[in-house]
Amino acid sequence: MVEIEQDILGKNDQYADGNRRFLRERGVLALNLVSSPGSGKTTLLTRSIDDLKPDWAIGVIEGDQQTSHDAERIRATGVPAVQINTGKGCHLDAHMVGHALERLDPPAGGVLFIENVGNLVCPAAFDLGEAHKVAILSVTEGEDKPLKYPDMFHAADLMLLNKIDLLPYLDFDVARCIDYARRINPKIQVLQLSATTGEGMAQWYRWLKMAREMLLIDRPELLEVS
Amino acid sequence: MVEIEQDILGKNDQYADGNRRFLRERGVLALNLVSSPGSGKTTLLTRSIDDLKPDWAIGVIEGDQQTSHDAERIRATGVPAVQINTGKGCHLDAHMVGHALERLDPPAGGVLFIENVGNLVCPAAFDLGEAHKVAILSVTEGEDKPLKYPDMFHAADLMLLNKIDLLPYLDFDVARCIDYARRINPKIQVLQLSATTGEGMAQWYRWLKMAREMLLIDRPELLEVS
Repeated sequence: MVEIEQDILGKNDQYADGNRRFLRERGVLALNLVSSPGSGKTTLLTRSIDDLKPDWAIGVIEGDQQTSHDAERIRATGVPAVQINTGKGCHLDAHMVGHALERLDPPAGGVLFIENVGNLVCPAAFDLGEAHKVAILSVTEGEDKPLKYPDMFHAADLMLLNKIDLLPYLDFDVARCIDYARRINPKIQVLQLSATTGEGMAQWYRWLKMAREMLLIDRPELLEVS
Repeated sequence: MVEIEQDILGKNDQYADGNRRFLRERGVLALNLVSSPGSGKTTLLTRSIDDLKPDWAIGVIEGDQQTSHDAERIRATGVPAVQINTGKGCHLDAHMVGHALERLDPPAGGVLFIENVGNLVCPAAFDLGEAHKVAILSVTEGEDKPLKYPDMFHAADLMLLNKIDLLPYLDFDVARCIDYARRINPKIQVLQLSATTGEGMAQWYRWLKMAREMLLIDRPELLEVS
């Protein structure tokens, strides 16, 4: 059982390396957005795209078991989106993403959001070739999630604490949640925001801007292009 | 043997977490500089300090088996430096660094450089609580080092390829070296520079600036302080 798992992950990692090489050559910043269902990922994404599309060429890969509702919501913003339906699969893998990249053909210097299947477990183990995993946790889910799903919060570089406009109506201890996340991953960055009201979104955009500049530090010609 | 090793690393990681918490609370960006002996770390560091000290409060922790030559070179730049002599030890550990932090008492919003013992093997395994490990490789050392010392290049977020002013006189393939480094660590960033001529140093300073802004993204009041 363990051996089969290693074989699967080993193969996935090879595809992920291929994706990462492709993305690096194009100078595309790829983020793998992970969360449980209903955390507000798609709302966060559509608002981010509306605000950022004047500056950057944005593309989206949407992962869902069934339906293309989310890809349609993304396309309504005017940016290209490729839907992957995983069927019985509970996560995207690097091979699927490789094919989606061929279809999406993201322009040099752009930003690629990969919205993973809503699942706080399995996507943690699968590298897609992204620059960063970003975990979205909504405050309605309870502050203990980083302890309960440690693999995911260990794999993420950034945690977005979403729906903070609801904090006045909830018994959610923000400081405790951040402390739990850092027990699992002392390096994780945490930003608090509400994709509905827009509060805190500017910090998230600054984080993206810096992550992109960091990726393109030796490619200044691409920084300006997009 | 393996158990003893795990015990030592487990204990080190607890101290490292403590250091990281302390550094986070102060908003200090800590970099762990690792390389083989003679890669030009101290020259890189003194030049960086001279250029950056007008903007940031800088502190240095110097690790060497014996002597305090390097700390003296650092203090000559006018910034505080604490020397750790490891004696027979071949690397800094988080406990030593914790005590050095008490002595150094770095100001909020500053930058801390930790110059590790010149050794491409052992420092890879010891987290000191830094935000990033930075591996310095000089082009006089040969392009195969990332393959021969994979743990170090796997642990580093950034590789500085130093002494590029000597490239015309060497048989060193820069592209191959970068390819080797990315086989070991597909996410590693690489910058080429010469601490002697100053070529490429501006990119390294931009990288530091972004790493600091990223660390302080939720503490804008500290960004301006230092």
